[in-house]
Amino acid sequence: MARRQLKLGAFMRPVSLHTGAWRYPGAWPDANFNFAAMKRFVTTLERGKFDAFFMADHLAVLNMPIEALKRSQTVTSFEPFTLLSALSVVTERIGLVATASTTFDAPYHIARRFASLDHISGGRAGWNIVTTSNPDAALNFGLDEHVEHGERYRRAREFYDVVTGLWDSFADDAFLHDVESGLFFDPDRMRRIDHKGEFLSVRGPLNIARPVQGWPVIVQAGASEPGRQLAAETAEVVFAASSTIENGRSFYADVKGRMDRLGRPRDGLKILPGAMVFVGDTVEDAKARRARVDALVHADSAIAALSISLGVDASAFDPDGPLPPIPETNQSKSSRERVIELAERENLTVRQLAQRLGGYAGLAFVGTAETIADEMEEWLETEASDGFNLVFPYVPEGLDLFVDRVVPELQRRGIFRTEYEGTTLRDSLGLPRPSNRHFA
Amino acid sequence: MARRQLKLGAFMRPVSLHTGAWRYPGAWPDANFNFAAMKRFVTTLERGKFDAFFMADHLAVLNMPIEALKRSQTVTSFEPFTLLSALSVVTERIGLVATASTTFDAPYHIARRFASLDHISGGRAGWNIVTTSNPDAALNFGLDEHVEHGERYRRAREFYDVVTGLWDSFADDAFLHDVESGLFFDPDRMRRIDHKGEFLSVRGPLNIARPVQGWPVIVQAGASEPGRQLAAETAEVVFAASSTIENGRSFYADVKGRMDRLGRPRDGLKILPGAMVFVGDTVEDAKARRARVDALVHADSAIAALSISLGVDASAFDPDGPLPPIPETNQSKSSRERVIELAERENLTVRQLAQRLGGYAGLAFVGTAETIADEMEEWLETEASDGFNLVFPYVPEGLDLFVDRVVPELQRRGIFRTEYEGTTLRDSLGLPRPSNRHFA
Repeated sequence: MARRQLKLGAFMRPVSLHTGAWRYPGAWPDANFNFAAMKRFVTTLERGKFDAFFMADHLAVLNMPIEALKRSQTVTSFEPFTLLSALSVVTERIGLVATASTTFDAPYHIARRFASLDHISGGRAGWNIVTTSNPDAALNFGLDEHVEHGERYRRAREFYDVVTGLWDSFADDAFLHDVESGLFFDPDRMRRIDHKGEFLSVRGPLNIARPVQGWPVIVQAGASEPGRQLAAETAEVVFAASSTIENGRSFYADVKGRMDRLGRPRDGLKILPGAMVFVGDTVEDAKARRARVDALVHADSAIAALSISLGVDASAFDPDGPLPPIPETNQSKSSRERVIELAERENLTVRQLAQRLGGYAGLAFVGTAETIADEMEEWLETEASDGFNLVFPYVPEGLDLFVDRVVPELQRRGIFRTEYEGTTLRDSLGLPRPSNRHFA
Repeated sequence: MARRQLKLGAFMRPVSLHTGAWRYPGAWPDANFNFAAMKRFVTTLERGKFDAFFMADHLAVLNMPIEALKRSQTVTSFEPFTLLSALSVVTERIGLVATASTTFDAPYHIARRFASLDHISGGRAGWNIVTTSNPDAALNFGLDEHVEHGERYRRAREFYDVVTGLWDSFADDAFLHDVESGLFFDPDRMRRIDHKGEFLSVRGPLNIARPVQGWPVIVQAGASEPGRQLAAETAEVVFAASSTIENGRSFYADVKGRMDRLGRPRDGLKILPGAMVFVGDTVEDAKARRARVDALVHADSAIAALSISLGVDASAFDPDGPLPPIPETNQSKSSRERVIELAERENLTVRQLAQRLGGYAGLAFVGTAETIADEMEEWLETEASDGFNLVFPYVPEGLDLFVDRVVPELQRRGIFRTEYEGTTLRDSLGLPRPSNRHFA
C-alpha cells in the first residue's frame, strides 16, 4: 500500500520571517523588492516539488517598537497578488497562495483577483483567508478602532460564502465562443448571487469566468475557537501553529473531529504546521547555524521580545548569565513557563534566549537530512500533521540545503512526490474540484 | 531641430473593444482568459516600441440588454493587476497601465498594488484613475444607489492626494540594509500621512518602499468639466475621446489652457485620444476590412445601439435601405445629428449604420500606412493631440499590421522612437520623476 504523502508549503516574506536573516552571510538584504530574488526562490521550491508558495501579508507597517522595527526586514515587501501573478509566469506547477483579508477588502475584488490569478496560472491559486489581527490596519482603512474578534469571524464566514458564490457565477461551459451564430456565452449558464447579509450586500454576477480549479484552494490559519470551527467548515489547508508534536496531535484531532461532526471527509483538509528548518552536515552543524542566525538579532529587539514573553523588564539581567528566577506576573503563565523551560532545556544565556525569541521561536527542525526526515515522518505517521508549511531561516542557502538534501531523503522514503501529480494546486494536494452550486 | 514625437498607447480588452472582433477570421475568441494570447499581444506592442499597454476594466458585468450582452466578448476578462504583473515578466520596456476605481476601492490597497507593480516591472506602472460610471458596480459593492457624479470627483481628488502621499511614505534612501550595524532602514526617513478628509481617513505609512518611478504615471479619461479640471491638476496622460480633429484641438487647448492657469508646464501632460486603426494594402482594402468586422456585429446588438443613439425604435426600419427621416426626440440632439451625419457621409444602409454603432463608433483611422501616418502627423502638428491611445479592431492581425507597417512609416518620418529612451514609463513619456513631499 502506498504510504501517506507529505504536503509541503513554503511560507515566506521575501527575505525570511527570522529577523536576523537579512544579516546572515550570503543573504540578499534587498530581497523585499528584488523580483529576481523571488524568482530564484520560487523556482528552487518548484525544483523541490513543493506544493505551494504561501505569501504572508500585512496591511500596515508592523506595530512593533521603533527600536525593533528599524532592524526588521519585515517592515515592507511586495503586495501578494502582483508578486504571485508575476511568479506564475516563471513557474509551471507550484501552487501560489495569496493572503487576503476579509476585514479590510471587498468580496467582489477578492473573488476577481483570485479568479484571475487562477486563470493566469492555469489553476494554481490559493486563498489564505485572514481576518487581520493587526489593529494598525484599521487605521489605514478609515476605522478608528479595530473590529472585534467575534465580529471579524462572522464577517469572514459571510465573506467566504459571497466569494465562493461569485466564483460560481458562470457554469464551466457557459462560454460558447460560437463564431458562426455569434453567441459568445449562454446567458442561461450565468447567475447573480443577490446576496444581502449581516455585513455584505453583493449582486453579482462576477465578470470573470469560473476559475480553472472551480474555486482556488481555501487556506486558513486561525487557531482560536471560531478560527478552528471556520476551518473545519470551509478550509482545505490549515496553516497550524503547533509548537510540539503533542500540540500537533491534539490540534489535528480537534479539527478533524469537527469535520467528522460536519460530515466532511477528513482528507478534504490538509493540516500543515509552520516549521523552520535548519539543515546541517551534522546535528551540531545545524545547531551552530541556528545559533549564528539567532546571534544576528539585535540586542534591542531581542531584549524587548524577552521582556514581553516574561512580563518583566529583562534589560537589567546579565546577558551572559543564565535566566534569573522570574516572579509571577500578569503575563500568561503558560507563556512565561514556556520561556523558562526553553532556557533550561537548551542551556541558553539571557542573550541567547532573547535572540531566539526576537528571531523565530516557533516549531523548528534542526539537524541533518536524516534526522529532519525522521521527525517529519513521525509527525505524518502519528497524525500530528499532513505535512508542513516550511519557513527558511535564511535564503537562499537555507532553502537550497532543504531542497538538495532533505527533499531527496523524503522521496527515498516514499513519503514525498518525485513528480507533480497534475497541473493544478488541487491536483498536488489531492483535493476535489468543487461543483458549481448552480450548475451540474 | 528634433520633431515633436508621437506617444502611443494601446487600449485593450483582451479580444478587442469592437464587439464583432471575436468573430473575425483569425481572431482568438478565447483571449479573455488566454494568457498566451495576451503575451503575444504585449510583446508585439513592445516590438512596435509602444509607450504603454492600457488595461480597460469594469467592476460589474456590463449593463447592456441580455440580447446584446450574450454576443459580446466584453462580458468578462482578466483583472488588471494580476494580468499586468504577469505581463511585466515577459516584457522589458513597455509601460503597464491598470485601471483602478477611486469610488469602489481603498487608497491603501491601490497605493500598495501600484507600488508593488512598479517595483516588479522596474518602473513601468501607470494608474488610469476612473470614478466608475457603471451604476451596476455599486450593487456589487454594498451600495443600493450609484454615487453621484460630483461626489465621485471630489472623492477622486482626495483619493489621489492620499495615494500619492502614501507613495511618499519612505525617502528613496530610507532602506540602508546595513548588515554591520543591523539597521535595516532609517526611521527618520519614514512618514505617516495622518490623513482625515471628507471621504477618507488613512494613517500610513505605506508598507512598501517608494516606487521606482517615485509615483507611477497618473492617467485619466474624464471629459466632463470636473474631469477636465482634475486632469489639468493631476494627470500626466489623458485618454481623450475626441471624435474629430477639430474636437481634438478644442479639447487640447482647453486642458492645456487649464494647466497654464495652474502654472503646470504643458509637456507634463500627454493628451492621447482613443483611435481605432484599420490598416489595408489600399484605402479601399482598409475600408473593406472595417466593413467586414462591422458586419460581424449581430443584428440584435446593432439595432439596439442604433435605437439608443437616435432615441427611436429602429427595429422597424428597412435594414437594407437608407436611414429614414428621424423626428426630434428626448435623445440629445448632438448624438442624433452625429448619427444622421455619419449615415450620409459614408452612405451607409440602416444595417451598416447600426453595426457601426454596435461595434465601435469612435475616432478611427482607415487607410494605408501612409494615409494613417499623414493623419497622425496632422493631429500632432496642429496640437490636436500628443499621440494616440490605439484600439485594434481585431487581434492579432489588426495589431500586427499596425506594428509592421504604420510604425516604420512613423519612424521614417522622424515622429516616433526607434528605441526606448530609457527603462521606465516616465522615461518613454518624457515625464519627470516626482519629488517626495517629505524628503528632499
